Amino acid sequence: MDDAKSAKPHVIIVGAGFGGLEAAKALGNKPVRLTVIDRTNHHLFQPLLYEIATAALSPADIAAPIRGILGKFPNIDVMLAEVTGIDVAKKTLTAGEQELSYDYLILATGSRHSYFGKAEWEKLAPGLKSLEDAVEIRRRLLLAFEYADRITDPAARQAAMTFAIIGGGPTGVEMAGAIAEIARFTLAKDFRHIDPSHARVILIEGDERVLSGFPEDLSASAMKQLRDLGVELRLNVHAENLTEEGLEVKGEFIPCRVKIWAAGNTASALGQTLGVPVDRPGRVVVNDDLTIPNHPEVQVIGDLAHFKDQKGNLLPGVSPVAMQQGRHAAKNILGMLDGRKPQRFWYWDKGSMATIGRNKAVADLNFVHFSGFPAWLAWLFIHIIFLVGFRNRVAVLMQWAWAYFTFNKGARLITRNFQAELRPPV
Amino acid sequence: MDDAKSAKPHVIIVGAGFGGLEAAKALGNKPVRLTVIDRTNHHLFQPLLYEIATAALSPADIAAPIRGILGKFPNIDVMLAEVTGIDVAKKTLTAGEQELSYDYLILATGSRHSYFGKAEWEKLAPGLKSLEDAVEIRRRLLLAFEYADRITDPAARQAAMTFAIIGGGPTGVEMAGAIAEIARFTLAKDFRHIDPSHARVILIEGDERVLSGFPEDLSASAMKQLRDLGVELRLNVHAENLTEEGLEVKGEFIPCRVKIWAAGNTASALGQTLGVPVDRPGRVVVNDDLTIPNHPEVQVIGDLAHFKDQKGNLLPGVSPVAMQQGRHAAKNILGMLDGRKPQRFWYWDKGSMATIGRNKAVADLNFVHFSGFPAWLAWLFIHIIFLVGFRNRVAVLMQWAWAYFTFNKGARLITRNFQAELRPPV
Repeated sequence: MDDAKSAKPHVIIVGAGFGGLEAAKALGNKPVRLTVIDRTNHHLFQPLLYEIATAALSPADIAAPIRGILGKFPNIDVMLAEVTGIDVAKKTLTAGEQELSYDYLILATGSRHSYFGKAEWEKLAPGLKSLEDAVEIRRRLLLAFEYADRITDPAARQAAMTFAIIGGGPTGVEMAGAIAEIARFTLAKDFRHIDPSHARVILIEGDERVLSGFPEDLSASAMKQLRDLGVELRLNVHAENLTEEGLEVKGEFIPCRVKIWAAGNTASALGQTLGVPVDRPGRVVVNDDLTIPNHPEVQVIGDLAHFKDQKGNLLPGVSPVAMQQGRHAAKNILGMLDGRKPQRFWYWDKGSMATIGRNKAVADLNFVHFSGFPAWLAWLFIHIIFLVGFRNRVAVLMQWAWAYFTFNKGARLITRNFQAELRPPV
Repeated sequence: MDDAKSAKPHVIIVGAGFGGLEAAKALGNKPVRLTVIDRTNHHLFQPLLYEIATAALSPADIAAPIRGILGKFPNIDVMLAEVTGIDVAKKTLTAGEQELSYDYLILATGSRHSYFGKAEWEKLAPGLKSLEDAVEIRRRLLLAFEYADRITDPAARQAAMTFAIIGGGPTGVEMAGAIAEIARFTLAKDFRHIDPSHARVILIEGDERVLSGFPEDLSASAMKQLRDLGVELRLNVHAENLTEEGLEVKGEFIPCRVKIWAAGNTASALGQTLGVPVDRPGRVVVNDDLTIPNHPEVQVIGDLAHFKDQKGNLLPGVSPVAMQQGRHAAKNILGMLDGRKPQRFWYWDKGSMATIGRNKAVADLNFVHFSGFPAWLAWLFIHIIFLVGFRNRVAVLMQWAWAYFTFNKGARLITRNFQAELRPPV
């Protein structure tokens, strides 16, 4: 094959999430040589990660190989590597052991969980960003019930059947609802020594309401829908300490085996290597055209970008922002190739939604708010449409239909060795 | 819930593979208290494991939670634990940290790979028995192409694109065919610096033909079908040595990054704790009614049993044998409860089949042999019918249809950290 460099300008996109992938597709078959670098081999449909964690879907249902998506564009080269440094003056970056030079760069490496300086909490309460995270949470959830079924000590059993979710944003709400549903419906008949429907699901939120990014009426509706599922809401409190045995809120210790982190994000560390201002969570403060100061050839998009819209509001870290910015960044590059200046980015906010469980959701379409079954149907519809690839779409739809009509979740697999984790307390 | 022991006789089944599961279903809602113990939480449809390894299916497509399958029978308790010892005199066994006593025992713990005393080869050439095995092989296959695409040294690139399968039984033949197909069709357009269709797939077999358990005409047909796919057959040779860099056959060293073991089985070590004769691979020599000498309350079935049929032929380690023996063992127990003696087991051999690739297979239905497309269709049909659970059946059928018409395999996911494995040679 051809390793030789062509005369076309070289564009590098780092990160094949929602933003990076949209930018790449917009540059497919265009007069550029494009290299897409990601540290995993798949694009992940993150909004459905909680469905992996709660055993409704399989990893391959929501992840598509990047090479498979972009393989049809002969001008796109995909590279599986971690980018560890960028030199904007020399226009080079380090990917794996290689140094690559670029004419244009789009940085779209997103964000990770933030444990607010308590890095040791990550092992105790994993977050939900990657497939590995989701599979690990699924494993802990299912093993907790296995453990509870096997031991006889009532206190230990109760602790094993208590699930704490820290953070009441969309991910926390989805996880709390999904765990409550699994315990009540899916696992109900599976055990002989415990009743899974007696599981306690506790959602901990520092604000006075969950989904604080949503209008108040929808927060109220979400809280009612969560309580209907038996979820305990602990509002206006923070997790003050985490241990293997449980967590502390407002001085009270709650014995609890499984803890899940959905409380905060920090931007990818790569943003800080650009030598331009970043905000407190590490997001790169970009110009209104998505470029960085003094380097129009470098654009930052998605969760890694700190971008204020026309009203001065910071855009949230959600996929529609990333996708629109990805397409815009690609257009900027094509424009610059024709001698035009990069253009201002305008975000078109179509609204937002969060799901809580079977027939339960909230949706904010700006001009109208709705919740319950219609919101849930809308959520389903939107998420199926945006899933990458026909195969995944049909597979997910089928598994949802199956789960809906049977209350059964098929992907209840525990893999890897786990005998040690089933040992009773001594 | 009810932890108290009932007055009903206690049956324990160890292992929820094909044999154990059939026995359990046959004892569901019968006047016994049944405990099914397995060291994983899922029943695995092993004949399709190679489809996980070659990225056509996802783990959840071919694995079903044991609790989900048996949950509808109130007399069955499922336990996730490893059985480490059996005391046939006391009628007890050790599962995890617990000692359990039984009135009747069915042992169905199957087999593992045998590396013929070279345990250190297991890391170099994983076999294909569990989901973890399959995911590990998938990971190595996909990473080999990523690595080849990234490095420039021609010899290292060729070694990364050489795949050796050791053992030409059904698993080896399926793996060789599937890898050749992935390289030729699925990955063809995915890379810019290598041509995956130039991958070498080598199948190494000690006998003079592959599928030596099949009639000679079908072996010949299988070999032709493999060669049509570009698979190199090395017959009458053994892998004499394995290293990270390659393997040695007949004194020749073949540089080769990915090696897969499909060469031999050894029975689960639990058989040797019974204190009765075992054969060389560790299978328990059972009476003609599946019980062990002097202990009619203990039966051994499936891959763990050494059983000779009416003609003196040793029954092979395949799922139909295990399933028929499972049902028979259950019937024996119900008979003994009514005061009858255990009955002789008769195996009804319906034939066997192996698949090689798209439209390629061989089938031996005893009265007729066929190969190619009709055999492949028969293989497809049979495997779909026997897949556990409606959901899995439809999901697998759909993904096969998708792969068939698009040549695309969707489950090409590499998970876990792998940056170190992509580093070029120094």
